[in-house]
This record gives sequence, structure tokens and C-alpha cells, in this order.
Amino acid sequence: MKKRKYYLSENEIPEFYYNIQADMPKMMQPPLHPATLQPIAPVDLEPLFPMELIKQEVSLERYIPVPDEVHHLYSIYRPSPLIRATELERALDTPAHIYYKYEGVSPSGSHKTNTAIAQAYYNKAEGVKKIVTETGAGQWGSALSFACNHFGLQLQVFMVKVSYFQKPYRKTYMNAMNASVVPSPSTLTVSGKKVLTDNPESPGSLGIAISEAVEIAAQNEDTRYSLGSVLNHVLLHQTIIGLEAIRQMEMAGEMPDLVIGCFGGGSNFAGLAFPFLRLNLKAGGKMRFIAVEPESCPKLTRGTFRYDFGDTAGLTPLIPMYTLGHQFVPPEIHAGGLRYHGAGAIISQLLQDKLIEATAVGQSRSFDAGLLFARTEGIIPAPESSHAIATVVAEALKAREEGISRTILFNLSGHGHYDMGAFERFLKNELPDYSISDEEIAKSLAMSEVPVN
Amino acid sequence: MKKRKYYLSENEIPEFYYNIQADMPKMMQPPLHPATLQPIAPVDLEPLFPMELIKQEVSLERYIPVPDEVHHLYSIYRPSPLIRATELERALDTPAHIYYKYEGVSPSGSHKTNTAIAQAYYNKAEGVKKIVTETGAGQWGSALSFACNHFGLQLQVFMVKVSYFQKPYRKTYMNAMNASVVPSPSTLTVSGKKVLTDNPESPGSLGIAISEAVEIAAQNEDTRYSLGSVLNHVLLHQTIIGLEAIRQMEMAGEMPDLVIGCFGGGSNFAGLAFPFLRLNLKAGGKMRFIAVEPESCPKLTRGTFRYDFGDTAGLTPLIPMYTLGHQFVPPEIHAGGLRYHGAGAIISQLLQDKLIEATAVGQSRSFDAGLLFARTEGIIPAPESSHAIATVVAEALKAREEGISRTILFNLSGHGHYDMGAFERFLKNELPDYSISDEEIAKSLAMSEVPVN
Repeated sequence: MKKRKYYLSENEIPEFYYNIQADMPKMMQPPLHPATLQPIAPVDLEPLFPMELIKQEVSLERYIPVPDEVHHLYSIYRPSPLIRATELERALDTPAHIYYKYEGVSPSGSHKTNTAIAQAYYNKAEGVKKIVTETGAGQWGSALSFACNHFGLQLQVFMVKVSYFQKPYRKTYMNAMNASVVPSPSTLTVSGKKVLTDNPESPGSLGIAISEAVEIAAQNEDTRYSLGSVLNHVLLHQTIIGLEAIRQMEMAGEMPDLVIGCFGGGSNFAGLAFPFLRLNLKAGGKMRFIAVEPESCPKLTRGTFRYDFGDTAGLTPLIPMYTLGHQFVPPEIHAGGLRYHGAGAIISQLLQDKLIEATAVGQSRSFDAGLLFARTEGIIPAPESSHAIATVVAEALKAREEGISRTILFNLSGHGHYDMGAFERFLKNELPDYSISDEEIAKSLAMSEVPVN
Repeated sequence: MKKRKYYLSENEIPEFYYNIQADMPKMMQPPLHPATLQPIAPVDLEPLFPMELIKQEVSLERYIPVPDEVHHLYSIYRPSPLIRATELERALDTPAHIYYKYEGVSPSGSHKTNTAIAQAYYNKAEGVKKIVTETGAGQWGSALSFACNHFGLQLQVFMVKVSYFQKPYRKTYMNAMNASVVPSPSTLTVSGKKVLTDNPESPGSLGIAISEAVEIAAQNEDTRYSLGSVLNHVLLHQTIIGLEAIRQMEMAGEMPDLVIGCFGGGSNFAGLAFPFLRLNLKAGGKMRFIAVEPESCPKLTRGTFRYDFGDTAGLTPLIPMYTLGHQFVPPEIHAGGLRYHGAGAIISQLLQDKLIEATAVGQSRSFDAGLLFARTEGIIPAPESSHAIATVVAEALKAREEGISRTILFNLSGHGHYDMGAFERFLKNELPDYSISDEEIAKSLAMSEVPVN
């Protein structure tokens, strides 16, 4: 019998995060202040983030310690298991070895808890009373609601409207953790009202919800903003996934040829991939790293690398990123966590430098793969994670065709128990695929011009 | 830091089930054929069950081997973790040590998968093509749908109507695993039609759904019936929970003073408790075993010990049981898995002989405890499991008052991700408590007279 599960004990939870900025062959351009077009200074970000997170954002230290209280709270669910997908391998009749790191064991059911705990801790430590955030499908808002409740912080969540109605139990989860939840675009902010004026039927997007949350945070002294992906410090916190996975792959006696993660803003992909990327850079190895985005929101595969805003209203700094334009509103796919117009600065630079690759998967192909995974491996995957699975399946079948055994590692970023409405629609053949034309992308980019390129 | 998680490796999955019938100080009375009032013969059960399960039902062997194929499929999620509830202990400021065995890691999210896999396997091995079953809240139907899909068996599920509408995503899960699901009472059976004639608004009950499933199975040659609790062989399969837990408690360096499980038909309680009960009997120890039922369905604490039918229509053998009468239709609590009028024969005998205890918990107290658990331990518990948690909390607070450190072990039988509608109602103060009067119980028992007492 093939061994399936690789556990670490809780005293093997990493004590440091890995900061890839220390090892990047080519550094990214700095974020710019939109008014001055000069690199932003830490003080510019103080209305939004606690100083420790701002420092992490620009740190060049390779290893940054996990605070004791954060480490303790991690121990309620970490280390997460590494599992060999023996039953999926069998169903695909592939010589490939498929492993997944399962982040669905966290309280809110996804990897988002890793950074939620850290961010809530740093905010608490600096006297912040309230946090405002956005959430797409709800994984991020759920994770932060758990962490804020633990540390006694208030939380207000702007949830992308289409997801708010697609996944009602996410709201219940956040309410159960004492957070308040508002569908976005809302009438609580200038940004939200503007979108609603232009399009009362707007389904919302992560970019819009970010604008709303940033606006509220900037106006209130004891309130800060918190982001669930994209930023350097968020990706940093997620690297505990990959650090654990390296030890677990060592236990399994092999290293991956392919490392795969789904891609929205980049945090689950980066969390798994970056520690392996360091190994690969050091060893001059041939590991491949594949970010999987939805065909309906293809910034990595069809976007442009340029400065852009992180939000729709243009309240954030300008960030060097692969983007579809900050005005882009993605189609209403169920993988709400992937409905973001851009990629973070680090990821964009790595893609530009060909250290990572990207591919795109359509909605029905992702659900097909998710269902196969549920039936074989016994875990209902989140629609986001199902995008990674679709690419894993394709690579495993390619290995079969070529008669080559490859070792594939992917991040099962979360479970899909709150997404059964989407599976219901898929089973009834009611889930459409969406294609985005080159013209739509060009139009969005033109609408999203910023003062610098 | 207190150690939280105790893992076993997959080669430590038990290779034998533990059969408590080999060790019972006093044997229960036999099930009777309702027509002859004579003990039923194996042949009487052949229209309903494969022969191996019938043999297990009456076996006096202490250990019964787990078939290889079943053992292999267990390995996708077993051994399940034993977790020390350090964060709950801290919140309760209790000297008690609280441990839980977490069965929510199984494919369908509850302990039910343990017997589902075994039953599907034995049916497949004897050439059965189709299985019919009932389900309450949907955990059992989900578990069996996963197992039947794996072994290529068709499955038809009668789902108690009130749960069918309370937990719509359970149906989706079963459909995703290729099972068909019908709300019960239905018009597909004589039993269902009779109930609907008497009360078109009937919310359904496990007893009614069992009648419907048994009726269909009995009429079709290649079809068998499958039950998710109550019967001896079902409890037998669940003992892998307790067998694993003994090894894990040994790793933790202590044995429980109290073993606690929620109680519907008895399978999760028995699965955890029986292996410990054997240790306790052998050692003449003082472990206590507490079954926790809902106040609205109090067969153990307020029912009568006598022969009764396992189903509403009176199609099953007569079983010696604690019962509220097979005509009893419990109030519409969300813990649908506990809405059963009776207890299995083994459990009933053990309660009669004072080897186990029982207590009852109201709906709002169970949700209070469940929410505390979710906020501290980071796992949303099923409403059923929340009944066990409520009793754990009470015992932990008692330990604090008495200044005594006790070791408490309970079965977290499943997660509550499909029950968020119930948490939503609870947060809005819309979940009622139900009390059952002595008159109601007396009336139900009088309506449920059987030819023998």
C-alpha cells in the first residue's frame, strides 16, 4: 500500500516565515504614490496598516520570526497534512506521483487563516480596535473573522455582492465569529455609491470591495485595513505552507518536478511555491511552478505588465503588476477568490523573469476536476482549488501519455462545503463558461490608464 | 505548550472491529419476528441484508476482521486525529483535560463513513446491485453515497423531509456522488402514502424513512437495505473509533474518566465508548460513559424499555429497546441525526444494566456549546455533536467548581458546514427549545403497542 499521509508534529510548525525578497534575482519596481508618482514611504501607509506589517512589506530579511502568540494559534490546526493522492492517481492511471498540501483543515477552511492570524495579531499589538476588509467568495473574511474574534478586534467585511448571494453561509460563519458583513458595492462609501450610480446591477468585484474597505479605514483613527492576498507581507505569512511541505516531501523521499496552485491575488500559490523556488534557485534545479487562473480573469496569461491600482476606485498605491486594468469586472464565476484584476508585485516580477509560469482553466473544466477529486480523494474542493486540480489532472495525463513519472505537488487551498450551490448548478448543467475577448481586455486597460506606465 | 494533536499512521488503522457482544455481562433478548413472535432467523433477514452483515449481527466473536478493501478505503481519511481541546479548556478555565476524537475528517464529514464503506463492500461482494436507505440530517446518506459510488453500487436515499429542506446541500453532496434522493414521507411507498394521508404536513422522521426504504428493498431481488445506526453490525464497524482512541490516549499518557457521545441510534457513542468499556470491565475501573440525547427525543432518559419496532410502519423485527414508541414523531430540531424514537438493543441492555448513563440537552444549550467550540477550537461542530459538547462543558465546569482535574474524552462525530442554516437561525434567536410532556410520551407509547412486552 502506498503511504498517503505525511504529518508533522506541532513543534515542527515553522518558527520563521520565508521572505523571497531576499532571494529575488531581479527586484521589482517600487510602489508609487498616485499623487506624487514617487515611491511611497512607510508613513504613507500608516493610516492603513500597523507598522510591523509595513516593515514586512519592504523587508529584505530572508527569515522573519513568527510571533509566539501567532505560533500558538497556528497550533490549533497546523501543521497541515501533506497527502499523496493515491486514489486520484489510480483513477487517472498515471505514473505521476501526485501530492497535495491540504489547507482546508484550518478553522475557516482555507489557507487564508495563516495570514489572518498574523495580521490580527500585529494590529492588536499596535492598539488597533477595528479592522475593515474585503472578501470575495468569503474564505478571507471568514478567516479574518475567526482571528479578530480570538484577539478581541472588531471586524467589518465588504463581501463581493455576487458571492454574498451565491454563498450565504459564509456570511453566517462571519456573523458567528462576531463580524459584520455588507454586500459590496454598498451605499456606505463614496466608492460604492459611484459604482452603483454607474451600474446599479453591478455584481461587485474584489477591486471594488477593496476600495470600500480602504476608504472606511482611512477615515477612522483606530481602524486599519487588512488585505487577504496580493501584498508582500500576505504572501510572506503563507510561506509556512511551503516550509512545512518541504519537510513533508523529504519524509516522502522525493521532491516535486511541478508545483501548482490556483491564482487570484497569489497568496496560496506563493505560500506553497516560494520556499521550493528558493531551493530550486539555489540548486539550479528544474522544478516548474505553475499558477492557474480562471479563463474569465486572465491577468497572468493575457494581461499587461505595468503600473496599476490595486482597487477599482484608485485609492491604493500604484503597483507594478500584471493586470487587466483596475476597471475590469470579471464574469460571475463561482471561484470568487480568483476574481481579481491583477497580480501582486512579487509574483508579477517572477513571471516577467520566467521563474514561474501561468495557465488558465475554464469554469466547467475546473468543476469536472473538482468532482473527480471529491469522488476519489473524498474531499470536496473549493472552486478556486479546483482550478489547480484541473491543471494537475492535465499534467498527470500528459505524464501517462509520455510514459514518464513526474512528481506533482499542489496546494489544495480550501474545502468547498460552502460552495455546494455551485456544485448543484454544475450538476444541472447550469454553470456557464465565459470567454473574454482581446477587445474587452484592451478596452478595460484603456479605461484603466494610470499616470505612469 | 500543551500538546494538542495525536496522530497515528495509516498502518495503525485497526485491522479488527471490536464486538462487545463477546463481553456483555448480560445478553439482550433476541429480536422477534412480528408475525410469529419467535426469535428471527438469519434467513428472515436475507431480503434486507447480505449474509456477512447478518452474521455480524449475531456474532459472539470478540474481534472481526476488517476486509482489505475496506481497510484500504479507510486509509484515505483514517486514522482520525485525537485532539486535546486546549483552547476550550482555557476558555472554561477548567482543570479538566478535554480530548476529542474528530470524525469530521471523513469524506462526508462524519463517523458514518466508517460503516458505510463496510456495508457497501459486503453488499458488493454478495452481488447486490442497489441499496436503499434512509437519512436524517444527511450525514448517513452522504457517507453511503460516497461508499456506493466507490464500489459501483446504485443508491436511493429517503431523506427525512424536514432535514431535506433544512440542509439542501446534503442532497447536492449525495447527487454529486451519483445517488438519488427523495424527501420522506414520499408517495413512492405504501408506508409513505399512509403517513401523508394521516398528516399531509408530516415533517417526517427516521422511523418513517426507514419504513419506506425497507419496503422498497424487500420488494426487489437485487436490492438491499442499509441502516446507518441502531443495529449491532453498525455499532461494530464504528468501534474503530474507540480502538484508535485507546492508542492515542496512551500516547497522551492518560485514560479518560468520562467518555461522552451524542445519541441518536447509538453508533457514534458506541463506536467511541465500547472499546473503553471493555477496558473498564476488565480492570473493574471507574470510567463513566454518558450518552447525550436531545430533550425533545428523550428515549434513554424518559422512554420505556420494551420490545418495539425500529420503524414507524412496523416492517422491521421487534427489538428490545428503550423507546418512545415507534409512532413518536420528534419535534423539528436541527440535530436531525438524533430524531429517532428508540435505541439499539445493545445500548438499551447496557443502560438497563447501568454500565452506561444518559442525559438530555435542549436545542439552544447545544448551539451555545457548539458556538463556543467553534470560536475556541476552530471547528464548526454538527448540531448532533454539539449535544456532546454541551455535556462536556457542563462536566468541565463541574470539575472547576469541585477543583478536581478530570479527563474527558468525547466524540466530535462530524462538522457542521452543512448546518449553517441552523446556526443562522440560532444567531437570530429563531431556534426554539421543545419540551415533551409525560402525557405526550405516554400517548405515543400507547399508540405504539406491539404484540409482546
